[in-house]
Amino acid sequence: MMEETNRIEETKIEGRNPVLEAFRAGRTIDRLFVLDGCQDGPVRSILREARRQDTLVQYVSKERLDRLSENGGHQGVIAVAAAYAYARIEDILQKAADKGEPPFLILLDGIEDPHNLGAIIRTANLAGAHGVVIPKRRAVGLTAVVAKTSAGALNYTPVAKVPNLTAVIEELKKQGLWFVCADMGGQRMYDLDLKGPIGLVIGNEGQGVSRLVREACDFAAAIPMKGDIDSLNASVAAGVLAYEIVRQRGM
Amino acid sequence: MMEETNRIEETKIEGRNPVLEAFRAGRTIDRLFVLDGCQDGPVRSILREARRQDTLVQYVSKERLDRLSENGGHQGVIAVAAAYAYARIEDILQKAADKGEPPFLILLDGIEDPHNLGAIIRTANLAGAHGVVIPKRRAVGLTAVVAKTSAGALNYTPVAKVPNLTAVIEELKKQGLWFVCADMGGQRMYDLDLKGPIGLVIGNEGQGVSRLVREACDFAAAIPMKGDIDSLNASVAAGVLAYEIVRQRGM
Repeated sequence: MMEETNRIEETKIEGRNPVLEAFRAGRTIDRLFVLDGCQDGPVRSILREARRQDTLVQYVSKERLDRLSENGGHQGVIAVAAAYAYARIEDILQKAADKGEPPFLILLDGIEDPHNLGAIIRTANLAGAHGVVIPKRRAVGLTAVVAKTSAGALNYTPVAKVPNLTAVIEELKKQGLWFVCADMGGQRMYDLDLKGPIGLVIGNEGQGVSRLVREACDFAAAIPMKGDIDSLNASVAAGVLAYEIVRQRGM
Repeated sequence: MMEETNRIEETKIEGRNPVLEAFRAGRTIDRLFVLDGCQDGPVRSILREARRQDTLVQYVSKERLDRLSENGGHQGVIAVAAAYAYARIEDILQKAADKGEPPFLILLDGIEDPHNLGAIIRTANLAGAHGVVIPKRRAVGLTAVVAKTSAGALNYTPVAKVPNLTAVIEELKKQGLWFVCADMGGQRMYDLDLKGPIGLVIGNEGQGVSRLVREACDFAAAIPMKGDIDSLNASVAAGVLAYEIVRQRGM
């Protein structure tokens, strides 16, 4: 299994034609680096594609681009492609439907550490979650480190990347899902009913769940804390809560 | 909290007198590097102290020692001291007694990744475990990375380092503790009685719990696996099992 994931690399695509082709072929570009001040026709075409796909664009100096470059042929543009393709929310819901199970999603509100993201995808797979949802901004994407840390789970568990987590939550609530976020100020997780179609929301390593996302959730679940420090590691908290859902579902 | 742990460094002690003094002052030396072939009086004294404390000794070339050296004054010996002091098993049991709680220990059978060890100590603190036990060999010790990843928990949760995990389990069984190890082939954790004085044993990242340790345990607990891959990350598995104990204890 590890051999399989070790082969996967985060890909850098360099040069105007290759980057434009990658966009037009529908590849998921996590991030686009463009030479600051570069405004000619081909670069404008690339930026138009980037805007259409809502890709994060960063304007950088020539020195930075040269350092990022792996083959020296960047011509002012470098695209960073995901190591894995992203899924759509519909794919995740379809997976639940195919299995005849109420949907179980894990949503990550700004996980930054690739080891945490990989471990959470691994947990999602084993806890029987149908997919993971991550935001486009201020969060790590499906890099090679994430693929490796997921220990193969990325081959099975779909991950969707969305522009706005709150909008996704509001939309899925209309489809009957309940949302619970991890929050120290919430009710003890054992006292909540976590059965049925559910989205579990885990916050950022430092700040926890953001205010807007927390307000969009139906309830907040607290893991009992008997110790002296503040919080569990984010991937451990995700595991503990995911398995409380597994227990209550009697899966 | 992070500022506090960021200050802590794994310490290298170099040179014959400083190393000998460190041993005699009772500092915990994780590892001793000695120049291969070095046999004079002072070095023999150091090796005698190392043997008395059962310190891991590695004989290395001059080139290796020179690379390990931070101040160039190794004189043929470099000791690596723990970033934190280790506790004794008795300290951990005393902590439980002071709190009037049945002992709850987490034993790690060969965790190699410092991030996993740090995350597990963090979990141990918050799940109300009274201490963590690690083996002397083939496992990471209390390094600076572990201290940092523990997010301050190492200031509160005692960690004991023992020559032989199986011997500790046998000894503590006589004192009334039950031992449960994480094992995919075991009973579903929900079906086991995990109340009372307990030691939770978590295996190595790749191999799981070793045969002798597993045989010394009273039962084996399986986390339900609903997915396609083999196993959870070791620190996530520790968290899920530790919190099943918390739930059953009604803590």
